[in-house]
Amino acid sequence: MAKPFNVGIIGMGFMGRTHSNAYRKVSNFFQLEHKPVLKAVCALEPEEKLKAFADTWGFESYETDWRKLVERKDIDQIDICTPNATHKELVLAAAAAGKSVICEKPLAMSAAEAEEMVAAVEKAGVANLVCFNYRRVPAVTLARQLVDEGRIGRPFHYRVNYLQDWTIASDVPQGGATLWRLDIKTAGSGVTGDLLAHSIDTAEWLNGPIQSVVAKTETFIKERMHQDTGKVEPVKIDDACMFLAMFANGSMGTFESTRYARGRKNYNTFELNGEAGSLYFNLEDPQYLDYFRYLDPATGKKVDSHVTGWQRIHVTNSEHPYMKKWWVPGCTIGYEHTFVHTIADYLHGIETGTPAQPDFRSGLRTQKVCDAIIASAASGKWVDIP
Amino acid sequence: MAKPFNVGIIGMGFMGRTHSNAYRKVSNFFQLEHKPVLKAVCALEPEEKLKAFADTWGFESYETDWRKLVERKDIDQIDICTPNATHKELVLAAAAAGKSVICEKPLAMSAAEAEEMVAAVEKAGVANLVCFNYRRVPAVTLARQLVDEGRIGRPFHYRVNYLQDWTIASDVPQGGATLWRLDIKTAGSGVTGDLLAHSIDTAEWLNGPIQSVVAKTETFIKERMHQDTGKVEPVKIDDACMFLAMFANGSMGTFESTRYARGRKNYNTFELNGEAGSLYFNLEDPQYLDYFRYLDPATGKKVDSHVTGWQRIHVTNSEHPYMKKWWVPGCTIGYEHTFVHTIADYLHGIETGTPAQPDFRSGLRTQKVCDAIIASAASGKWVDIP
Amino acid sequence: MAKPFNVGIIGMGFMGRTHSNAYRKVSNFFQLEHKPVLKAVCALEPEEKLKAFADTWGFESYETDWRKLVERKDIDQIDICTPNATHKELVLAAAAAGKSVICEKPLAMSAAEAEEMVAAVEKAGVANLVCFNYRRVPAVTLARQLVDEGRIGRPFHYRVNYLQDWTIASDVPQGGATLWRLDIKTAGSGVTGDLLAHSIDTAEWLNGPIQSVVAKTETFIKERMHQDTGKVEPVKIDDACMFLAMFANGSMGTFESTRYARGRKNYNTFELNGEAGSLYFNLEDPQYLDYFRYLDPATGKKVDSHVTGWQRIHVTNSEHPYMKKWWVPGCTIGYEHTFVHTIADYLHGIETGTPAQPDFRSGLRTQKVCDAIIASAASGKWVDIP
Amino acid sequence: MAKPFNVGIIGMGFMGRTHSNAYRKVSNFFQLEHKPVLKAVCALEPEEKLKAFADTWGFESYETDWRKLVERKDIDQIDICTPNATHKELVLAAAAAGKSVICEKPLAMSAAEAEEMVAAVEKAGVANLVCFNYRRVPAVTLARQLVDEGRIGRPFHYRVNYLQDWTIASDVPQGGATLWRLDIKTAGSGVTGDLLAHSIDTAEWLNGPIQSVVAKTETFIKERMHQDTGKVEPVKIDDACMFLAMFANGSMGTFESTRYARGRKNYNTFELNGEAGSLYFNLEDPQYLDYFRYLDPATGKKVDSHVTGWQRIHVTNSEHPYMKKWWVPGCTIGYEHTFVHTIADYLHGIETGTPAQPDFRSGLRTQKVCDAIIASAASGKWVDIP
Repeated sequence: MAKPFNVGIIGMGFMGRTHSNAYRKVSNFFQLEHKPVLKAVCALEPEEKLKAFADTWGFESYETDWRKLVERKDIDQIDICTPNATHKELVLAAAAAGKSVICEKPLAMSAAEAEEMVAAVEKAGVANLVCFNYRRVPAVTLARQLVDEGRIGRPFHYRVNYLQDWTIASDVPQGGATLWRLDIKTAGSGVTGDLLAHSIDTAEWLNGPIQSVVAKTETFIKERMHQDTGKVEPVKIDDACMFLAMFANGSMGTFESTRYARGRKNYNTFELNGEAGSLYFNLEDPQYLDYFRYLDPATGKKVDSHVTGWQRIHVTNSEHPYMKKWWVPGCTIGYEHTFVHTIADYLHGIETGTPAQPDFRSGLRTQKVCDAIIASAASGKWVDIP
Repeated sequence: MAKPFNVGIIGMGFMGRTHSNAYRKVSNFFQLEHKPVLKAVCALEPEEKLKAFADTWGFESYETDWRKLVERKDIDQIDICTPNATHKELVLAAAAAGKSVICEKPLAMSAAEAEEMVAAVEKAGVANLVCFNYRRVPAVTLARQLVDEGRIGRPFHYRVNYLQDWTIASDVPQGGATLWRLDIKTAGSGVTGDLLAHSIDTAEWLNGPIQSVVAKTETFIKERMHQDTGKVEPVKIDDACMFLAMFANGSMGTFESTRYARGRKNYNTFELNGEAGSLYFNLEDPQYLDYFRYLDPATGKKVDSHVTGWQRIHVTNSEHPYMKKWWVPGCTIGYEHTFVHTIADYLHGIETGTPAQPDFRSGLRTQKVCDAIIASAASGKWVDIP
Repeated sequence: MAKPFNVGIIGMGFMGRTHSNAYRKVSNFFQLEHKPVLKAVCALEPEEKLKAFADTWGFESYETDWRKLVERKDIDQIDICTPNATHKELVLAAAAAGKSVICEKPLAMSAAEAEEMVAAVEKAGVANLVCFNYRRVPAVTLARQLVDEGRIGRPFHYRVNYLQDWTIASDVPQGGATLWRLDIKTAGSGVTGDLLAHSIDTAEWLNGPIQSVVAKTETFIKERMHQDTGKVEPVKIDDACMFLAMFANGSMGTFESTRYARGRKNYNTFELNGEAGSLYFNLEDPQYLDYFRYLDPATGKKVDSHVTGWQRIHVTNSEHPYMKKWWVPGCTIGYEHTFVHTIADYLHGIETGTPAQPDFRSGLRTQKVCDAIIASAASGKWVDIP
Repeated sequence: MAKPFNVGIIGMGFMGRTHSNAYRKVSNFFQLEHKPVLKAVCALEPEEKLKAFADTWGFESYETDWRKLVERKDIDQIDICTPNATHKELVLAAAAAGKSVICEKPLAMSAAEAEEMVAAVEKAGVANLVCFNYRRVPAVTLARQLVDEGRIGRPFHYRVNYLQDWTIASDVPQGGATLWRLDIKTAGSGVTGDLLAHSIDTAEWLNGPIQSVVAKTETFIKERMHQDTGKVEPVKIDDACMFLAMFANGSMGTFESTRYARGRKNYNTFELNGEAGSLYFNLEDPQYLDYFRYLDPATGKKVDSHVTGWQRIHVTNSEHPYMKKWWVPGCTIGYEHTFVHTIADYLHGIETGTPAQPDFRSGLRTQKVCDAIIASAASGKWVDIP
């Protein structure tokens, strides 16, 4: 019989839903020693809303005060799904209480905050993970596998676009429970922390550390009504951010993110070009990984040049990462499954003693790159990542 | 508070899993008066396997004898996920016991069987549905909406491919719990009932009744080891089936299905060409519906001819069918969600008194077309659908 | 120095232009012993139009009477770009005059006519070719090469769509110089001879002979104004034709063609599925051949299943058929180049004594399949190809 | 009767072929007052090669000394297809001799050189054009038309990739007649002048002037054998270049070019995102322009959100730029046609008195951006375009 793994989730917005769903589903599909139990949800919401959320998702209880939740003896794990500005305080408290902790990305408002958080969980010796869920799209995990198999060889280029279009209208407000991502005080940054943090996590996972960056940010809509105050206030987040990067391995990186690319909804792409081959991924078509095979990794020789071409791998075979757990070849999975994989890997890490990645220390690393980007955008100069 | 809707599922194979998952998830995402409760699962399996399945999916109990399950007072609904040859007997029993019933497709081994089943549920006055889940891919539901909006106009062509490649190897056996789809006694037919039944259901939903067909079937691998007997036995199902059709509305249809199309895994496509516009869908890319707009339905006038082109609709907007219930625009859902939608619509139908489609009567209709296909393949002649 | 190859072209419509262009260009790109010289053009047009055409394309002269052209001593080759109904008479005259001859497709109005034409050119011993130019799209020629390399293995399926949309409007007239393809008297058939003849030629080249067919044709617009008479007259050609086929190698074929597929302009596709691999081509994207590699032809072993996918070959490498003659890798060529390749191969065939294909005998074969299609559409029965 | 337009071409490499072909073809497809006559070709090649080239392309004569060619009275136009380092001297001489002049891109080795060249042709009052042929891909010209129609609205982003992979192998030499693009002395720069110059020309044509850039270049292979000396010499060109840009209209630009992107052959792409719509183009698929329509330009209102999607316009309709001159809808043209369009527009400009663009002054502008890129790559700082 699986052992219960008692979870308290803080936050019941978009991420609260994805995490609740993940804990509920993981035991249906993954054979683990632990079975998550949704013990309690906590959020700054009216009690009736909390109750309804608990009912919908099958939580045993709810709490209105997160301090109380963190102290509960019947809870093993705190899962943080709240806005960025609250992450540090919640993590420090959870660690102090000896709870293992999953935190939504970005880990913190700054690298300085993230340092404190890493120190706290490492001191407490508790399991910890930043939820960069896109590593766990099967096609992205497969990309890492192909890199490990030597299918890319010497890397030359890594390029990223993470494009959305949902804030173009000037009458979209900022702040409040639903639009805190547009409010600098709560979010810390705009697309840099929200979108590029994902891309940086994936990039360093696939292509190693970024050494230096030069960046430019822009805020296209300068003022928006704030939902907390009801007043028009300046927008201080970056609506868009583009940067050049040099990787430690000598390859060049171009990164761009925006919420002003009409027609792109969750267009989170990367391309890696190496001497032996290339890879391309787009989150709007998450069932595919595109692979250009130039050198055959088995023989080290060139593929016949009349049959080279980008190969569109429909990542739904049993041999593909995670896919054997789901349905049959050809049947796609979706966005929410990346969270299920996250929980499965996290629990597996706890069970085997090899912690799942990216842990908070890895999340700190991403934070340092984000800080460098913001600093470079301010100075107009190349900035090294410490 | 939601009323319990007590479900007994018969069958714990591939479909048993998809249905269990759907009942578990539907209340997390859809606001309904009823909340499904997984009361019991039943299958011809060793008790330890049944118990494990019940544990994994959260069934309250399990039964080894389906007759007992059907008689249980605490069960409202029988959900049939067993091989085709068993459908009729199970449906008749469930209807006799006054249970509402969902049956996997194809409804029956023949139209004659299906007639009996329709009579049974209609006499019993119980809710009934055939699980043609692909109607409920959001992009397919959107296709129906665009047809209803007059965006196709006079139809000329409807074409279908449903291609897979998983039975090419001659050492794939037939029969047993996992490969009964290759055994004529259990499956009734090959790709005709397994794959084309889906395509026919969708086709008639989008384009109206098929009047007549001429078909050709083929069995490429003539003998396979049978898992029940351990002996090499003739293969009698159709490995592939192609047919021409005339629709009642005067349009022409081409249909083809096979499990021998190397590289196609769940390549279930349709294209509808009309005077005003065209539509294309492919289940391997289920997040898209392709639409060619020629006449603007608002004005009835031609679109500017320098900006006409196939439009690739990423069917993940809030305005798209079902999508508001899930995540945010740009985030895809997958195969399993079609079953959740099925249960949601089915319960909604019960709650509103407007039964969800396709009910058994509609499933009978599809069965008649399948019968005509098989008859035509045998005779080499055009066959009318009665 | 290249030897002059003196050409007389009959017809100055769409095909007259493509052939004139091809003769003009071939010597710029292909090293041949012969250099085509445009000696004369002939058409049933006012002299001023003929003269303008001759000027535009650099013909040395023009003729108003094709009999005179055929008799001219200074002409080696007659190239027939006229409507189908005239082919036989022109070919018989050209052969009688000892001229080599290229004839636009379809070769004839019927297999009976084609038999006469084959007899005439074979008796005269003159070079002859039917201009099925799509064989000479580099991607299509590459498809043949991949078949020859054993990359498909045992074939199971061949499927064709040839879809256009240019005759949907009911106010498109029939007949005259520009729309004779809609007039049964001049064209012989509709999409069968015009479009499917191409598809059949390619299919038999790639997959061997078709043994039997069952077909259905339709005429959606029953009457159109005739440009010759100014009167509304019945339309007797097939607007659309679909047929099932069995190939001699045991594989199954589906073919469909129409001019009523809104949004498809020159959507001439084929897909071939075999045990070892699959191929797909679409004339709207002629720079690509899609190839699914399942068995490695070098080793006969399966490709690693985590890196299988449809490979999109951009057929512009030097190693690809014809491409070395043109520009550099990555630079596409277009529609007109297929005619240049045709002339190059034809002349090369004359020069080497190994005649280019498809010659008239091969064109007769296609005609027999077309005749069988039309017969089957009339009878509703399967028809064998003699 | 068309007036002769007597052309002398200098250079018989890749560009010499594309220009010769364009002059030969233009009169077959475009109705102009002038008809180009290939009077002479000149190149630093053995006489037998020159003669063979002249024969192949139908030049009346050849010259071994460009000074003699420039002085010939029977020549109206000098067309410069030689390596970059020679452009200035040739242009100055041609202008001094009163010849009109077309020069391959990039116009010069530097903005300083380009200034002299502009002064020379403007003083001489001769027609002049830089051959940025990709403006004249019909899909790119259509992009400009859609911008002009107000279909983009306020622009936010412009992004470019121009990726190739042909210099990855370290045994590719530099210099000589075929590989001068890798030799800094002859080429001036690497991908910046060769590839990005195209992208910049298109970008400013579609989205207005670039104000400032920050760039990074890299040379991956540090030494290559030089074909002139036979010795291994340092490679000084940029193998790859990436830069960020701010446009005068406030939109952000990302640009990247390389010859080290395995699997990309002539992957010259741009995407423009605006409030009203977006555009995407890729030179490997030149028959398409992708358009996302958000606001209907006719009404200024939002398109129904359930039918928005990227629209793949097959740019082969009669209504599309240049296409009426060629074949019929659905039939593609290729790379070489962009040069034919260039000559057609250039002659039309001469005939109408409205010079075709980009003239040398426009080419100077592109050169200034290239200079700023190289300067920024050296300094690591943002550089303004003067």
